[in-house]
Amino acid sequence: MVQETVTLEGHLIDSDILRRAFARIVEGGGEFEVLECRVGATNADPSFAKLAVKARDPHALDAILEGLAYLGASASVVDARTLPAEADGILPDEFYSTTNFETFVRIGGAWLEARGQKMDCALVLRAGVPECVKQRLVERGEPVVLRGSGLRVRPPERSRDYSVFGFMSNDISAEVNKGIAIAGSAREMVKTRAAGEKIVVVAGPAVIHSGGDVALARLVRDGWIDVVLTGNAFAVHDFEKAILKTSLGVCQMSGRAVEGGNRNHLFAINAVNRAGGIRPAVESGLVKSGVMYEIVKRGIPCVLAGSIRDDGPLADVITDTLEAQMAYAKALEGAGMCLMLASALHSIAVGNLLPARVRTVCVDMTEALPVKLSNRGTLQAIGLVTDVGYFLERLESELRRG
Amino acid sequence: MVQETVTLEGHLIDSDILRRAFARIVEGGGEFEVLECRVGATNADPSFAKLAVKARDPHALDAILEGLAYLGASASVVDARTLPAEADGILPDEFYSTTNFETFVRIGGAWLEARGQKMDCALVLRAGVPECVKQRLVERGEPVVLRGSGLRVRPPERSRDYSVFGFMSNDISAEVNKGIAIAGSAREMVKTRAAGEKIVVVAGPAVIHSGGDVALARLVRDGWIDVVLTGNAFAVHDFEKAILKTSLGVCQMSGRAVEGGNRNHLFAINAVNRAGGIRPAVESGLVKSGVMYEIVKRGIPCVLAGSIRDDGPLADVITDTLEAQMAYAKALEGAGMCLMLASALHSIAVGNLLPARVRTVCVDMTEALPVKLSNRGTLQAIGLVTDVGYFLERLESELRRG
Amino acid sequence: MVQETVTLEGHLIDSDILRRAFARIVEGGGEFEVLECRVGATNADPSFAKLAVKARDPHALDAILEGLAYLGASASVVDARTLPAEADGILPDEFYSTTNFETFVRIGGAWLEARGQKMDCALVLRAGVPECVKQRLVERGEPVVLRGSGLRVRPPERSRDYSVFGFMSNDISAEVNKGIAIAGSAREMVKTRAAGEKIVVVAGPAVIHSGGDVALARLVRDGWIDVVLTGNAFAVHDFEKAILKTSLGVCQMSGRAVEGGNRNHLFAINAVNRAGGIRPAVESGLVKSGVMYEIVKRGIPCVLAGSIRDDGPLADVITDTLEAQMAYAKALEGAGMCLMLASALHSIAVGNLLPARVRTVCVDMTEALPVKLSNRGTLQAIGLVTDVGYFLERLESELRRG
Amino acid sequence: MVQETVTLEGHLIDSDILRRAFARIVEGGGEFEVLECRVGATNADPSFAKLAVKARDPHALDAILEGLAYLGASASVVDARTLPAEADGILPDEFYSTTNFETFVRIGGAWLEARGQKMDCALVLRAGVPECVKQRLVERGEPVVLRGSGLRVRPPERSRDYSVFGFMSNDISAEVNKGIAIAGSAREMVKTRAAGEKIVVVAGPAVIHSGGDVALARLVRDGWIDVVLTGNAFAVHDFEKAILKTSLGVCQMSGRAVEGGNRNHLFAINAVNRAGGIRPAVESGLVKSGVMYEIVKRGIPCVLAGSIRDDGPLADVITDTLEAQMAYAKALEGAGMCLMLASALHSIAVGNLLPARVRTVCVDMTEALPVKLSNRGTLQAIGLVTDVGYFLERLESELRRG
Repeated sequence: MVQETVTLEGHLIDSDILRRAFARIVEGGGEFEVLECRVGATNADPSFAKLAVKARDPHALDAILEGLAYLGASASVVDARTLPAEADGILPDEFYSTTNFETFVRIGGAWLEARGQKMDCALVLRAGVPECVKQRLVERGEPVVLRGSGLRVRPPERSRDYSVFGFMSNDISAEVNKGIAIAGSAREMVKTRAAGEKIVVVAGPAVIHSGGDVALARLVRDGWIDVVLTGNAFAVHDFEKAILKTSLGVCQMSGRAVEGGNRNHLFAINAVNRAGGIRPAVESGLVKSGVMYEIVKRGIPCVLAGSIRDDGPLADVITDTLEAQMAYAKALEGAGMCLMLASALHSIAVGNLLPARVRTVCVDMTEALPVKLSNRGTLQAIGLVTDVGYFLERLESELRRG
Repeated sequence: MVQETVTLEGHLIDSDILRRAFARIVEGGGEFEVLECRVGATNADPSFAKLAVKARDPHALDAILEGLAYLGASASVVDARTLPAEADGILPDEFYSTTNFETFVRIGGAWLEARGQKMDCALVLRAGVPECVKQRLVERGEPVVLRGSGLRVRPPERSRDYSVFGFMSNDISAEVNKGIAIAGSAREMVKTRAAGEKIVVVAGPAVIHSGGDVALARLVRDGWIDVVLTGNAFAVHDFEKAILKTSLGVCQMSGRAVEGGNRNHLFAINAVNRAGGIRPAVESGLVKSGVMYEIVKRGIPCVLAGSIRDDGPLADVITDTLEAQMAYAKALEGAGMCLMLASALHSIAVGNLLPARVRTVCVDMTEALPVKLSNRGTLQAIGLVTDVGYFLERLESELRRG
Repeated sequence: MVQETVTLEGHLIDSDILRRAFARIVEGGGEFEVLECRVGATNADPSFAKLAVKARDPHALDAILEGLAYLGASASVVDARTLPAEADGILPDEFYSTTNFETFVRIGGAWLEARGQKMDCALVLRAGVPECVKQRLVERGEPVVLRGSGLRVRPPERSRDYSVFGFMSNDISAEVNKGIAIAGSAREMVKTRAAGEKIVVVAGPAVIHSGGDVALARLVRDGWIDVVLTGNAFAVHDFEKAILKTSLGVCQMSGRAVEGGNRNHLFAINAVNRAGGIRPAVESGLVKSGVMYEIVKRGIPCVLAGSIRDDGPLADVITDTLEAQMAYAKALEGAGMCLMLASALHSIAVGNLLPARVRTVCVDMTEALPVKLSNRGTLQAIGLVTDVGYFLERLESELRRG
Repeated sequence: MVQETVTLEGHLIDSDILRRAFARIVEGGGEFEVLECRVGATNADPSFAKLAVKARDPHALDAILEGLAYLGASASVVDARTLPAEADGILPDEFYSTTNFETFVRIGGAWLEARGQKMDCALVLRAGVPECVKQRLVERGEPVVLRGSGLRVRPPERSRDYSVFGFMSNDISAEVNKGIAIAGSAREMVKTRAAGEKIVVVAGPAVIHSGGDVALARLVRDGWIDVVLTGNAFAVHDFEKAILKTSLGVCQMSGRAVEGGNRNHLFAINAVNRAGGIRPAVESGLVKSGVMYEIVKRGIPCVLAGSIRDDGPLADVITDTLEAQMAYAKALEGAGMCLMLASALHSIAVGNLLPARVRTVCVDMTEALPVKLSNRGTLQAIGLVTDVGYFLERLESELRRG
């Protein structure tokens, strides 16, 4: 459903305007929600109503709104305005900035859905079709949609929030039964796979340190994960564990710090880079286990984005952040579900690139990261305040038992 | 080992004093640690050494110190001083305040170990024996030990920190492999039981909300837990779940909030109190599952301490905080290990009552609680930053597999 | 405004029922909100509407609902049902559990406002008037209101949330400009005082450790605070600082830990108790500064509630938690604003006792406490994630500058 | 002081070896610490001692160790071993990995100090001098120092920890008087400036959101800050505030969210990039206030490192993470003090590049970031758990009052 907000003013009840407005909407196949309704206290006083009018598509909505206009409803239905980009990467000041909700632009009387929906983009007409384009990638002279008329957004359906866990759970809190929420995540993964959509994992190195890597490697091996988006450190510590059995220099068998273990991650980088990169490191037998091993064996895409705190880095890391951002965006195409695992940097980056329709679960040890994601517009992300190791172990066990 | 710090000054090397001091200590069956050693730059300059001298018991230490005195070492060996308490609960200003380490008091030339070791107590001579007594329980005229001479503390052995998990783990951090630490906790429980010591659980209501109650109930049923120290809310939410299948009004099957569920905990209190208390509630068949059910079935002690935020409370709650503190202290006698589970209030209370020799694991979602415990002197508590539900599930599974 | 939800079904638009319902409500001096409106797709299909009907008082609402009943609206207007309490502290199973919103009970055809509004209470008729009574204080035979008919709650007005800071701020987050929020709190204190309502401070010992005590003492001295609700530790550390210049044994001038400083808080307790309690300790000149000093000098009420982790305690502490709860409840009468400062225990306790109309600000270092308060029903508490020392310093400076 | 650990075994006391070893060390101008000393229980049993021997420089230490060798001490004094790098960025497996402590390498019998000390680097001989080189920058054939002999590290002096605040404060906790710690930071800044060393600020966008930017801008204006290391978001939100008076779309005057304010940061980027970058944006009068404004006016270096979550970015951002890392490293040359303000990403990046001798204060809202820094080897960073807005306001006020 797309929607438009219209206002009606006057003797709405006495003059039977409201009744007729409701009727018009229903006749047009639409629905409405009364957002506000102030009825004049006396017969002399005017009334006021604000309705959210919804219809299957922008065209049906247009027809309804035209009808309502005869009753005095205020919604204007005109084309979106555009202005050419002044220079490469420079927008006209009145540019419209996208959200992560599906967006329609009225061009030549037709409503066109924007391509590549993501937040904080400009809407640029390319071959006559509106497209979400990051500011810096807009080229001089391209028509940029301006804010104001001719724009419609498919509002987030509330039921959407319910869908991931089968119940309402967007109150972020550590005080909930995480077992239930994890079972809900597993059910959603089953549904996503059945729908032919991708399941994306965004992971930070804490997945390895916390021991969650064993379960994650199994999930990859068993085909539950379609894309892994992460950075250098995740892969390095996974290799450190595969090659030297330590993580950050701590033995993953005994929990004891290994003498001189702080060089182990550099050793792992060196060994993998000497082999010629991640794929050759696996194929040559240097790396025989771990998440990265399963990723290579399964052949699923894995993007390693560089960060300023990287050691090494591994030869496979994309060190340019804009290039990495584009590689993430490309890998996210077709995503139906996203698991964000203990990584503030990469989770916020992915939130910036995801349309709101992707079911998103954000697992972290404190409320702070889900709160941040929500503050930055990734409202669909459901916060699960728990240990990422627990989440992965139990998720894997739920999926294995089916 | 008890220990005393002594200082030596003078021409320690030239005059062969240090060598003779070392020899005296070893001859006396003791050990030493050179805490500080500043050797004079020239033959003319005096040297300085500070030694920690250790011996099996205070008497052996006395003998060594007497010998060292002849070499000029500074430790004095005299009786502890006492003054009578001025009034009930009022100490002389120079009172000695206890730590949670084993303490010896020299009285009439003999070193006597203090009874009921716990921190922040006065040392009172009762029937000639020093006893750790909470300030308010000291009676007028009782001899109170003063700070200064005649006191010795058995310092915490560093290896003690290693013992709980079989490795060093008192750096509190969420970034560790919790699976390893939980396995270490399980091993320690096995050892504690083998040694005939008690395993105490201190639990907050988050254990129930997080779903950890299922595993905890099994641990109680299988005889792993000897004492449970908690408050009203833990028991109430456990009963709410047993009777109505909700926790804080949230259904523990579906995760959905139940319409009007905020009255469920009051309903549970009402039902249990109507039955005449916890034991009758179980025996009458009103309560058929849960942690409290297993506690009653097993017959282990469980102390419910009142707090100002309690609803109800259940008839079994001790509402006077001083009385509750004494009941906790009594229940802690014979404890060899303590699991503190997601409760700041009760964990700090128990930390105040435990001798440092009790192996203590503190499980919480953030670093803040273990840091607080450590700041307040419960240095032996090892922080495990994870989800308490995870901890309990995995602990139970480790112990079941043996 | 009180409100009732009514449903209408049938040919609402065609038959002009909705228009007439709206008219009836407005004629009766009421307002409405259309919560749901599904209009039949064809003339044959029935429609459905759910309205929230609001009126100034329960009587006016009755009149409107009676009118709507003729149009087929579903709300029933009958008296509340009661059953006698089975025994002291034992309620009939169908008891109604209160919220913290103003509540009206229909008795003998009249709507009576409940006295002593607070959450998680039974409603008991005492001298024919409904009263919020904690479960344990209900006496055998007293009529207890049952859930179901004859109950109305004044819903929280959304604008209420805006009032504390002059803007919407119930999204808990550390990422906001706290200076603005603190200025808003100061403005609200000025308004509260002007309205002749009380300003209550609920404080934990972190106020002292963080150095916020200096500003709080000034606020008390200058008459900004009417009631202080806290526990033993707050007062003890305040006295420790006043008498020995340390807090938890750390010198508050230099920040250095004082040798043997862990006995200082026991020393302070001893000294104050020897003086005969808090008031004599101030009057005798033993205590010459600090928050407690200003409280005594100003003569404002201060309730110290006992907790199981208390040392001492000070002679003025109420060690029975139920008695302390009642003392808190009494001190909260007439409160218009509440500042909750870095204390989980006392803040949740006070949240349980406050009607929702009291403007409440909860200051803590993490999102966890405001989230907990909200989960437990204290929805009016606005979370301010910042250092309590900062909050107090800047609040005091705002109020001083006027 | 550099140091070496030596062990002695045998009849150390009887045969007077220990006395002579002590004498030899002192004669050589050195000092020692007895790390371990186990004296044989009988005359027949051998003793064992482990000494840390310290001397002014590696040469003096050599002389002492040679002397001790005659007494049977075990330290070997030989040159460091090297192997050529196998390929660009590929080290021999036995490479030595640096710490952030000053390091000396023995080459041709001489001890040479490593240049560009920082952690997790290889030591490469360039023009015969050891240099800390990031793995990826080592070139094929360059001699890489191997772990083992010929390496000495200047251990961190404990007093160093005390220096920043004038007292010990490396116990991370929110429960301390932050006013004292901030005053200590101010004193250290005065000292650093007097010593002609640089003061570096590492800042995250929370500095702007929390309102700390006003004080930080003043600190820059008044010459207290020599370098600012940050990322795109910090600068963007500072510009958003300077141009549009909002931060993340929230008005910084009223605290209210501005309608459509989520496009404001894109607007700011667009405006600054249109002007041609940061400097022209200030010079053209577009930007008239804020931290970035003062940075340009004062002409101090500011490095903006790109990250995958960036919008825009601003034209001045270095989007390649390796290039950005090198720009950070260069800007850190000559640093004497570093303030890390509410940024996990940039603080850890800078910690990786700093020698341990730089006094470092890490300000954040939770214990987690200082704990992480410490886990990653930035042990010198003192954690200050408080609101960054508070820290900056009070720091600026301390420095202004002198």
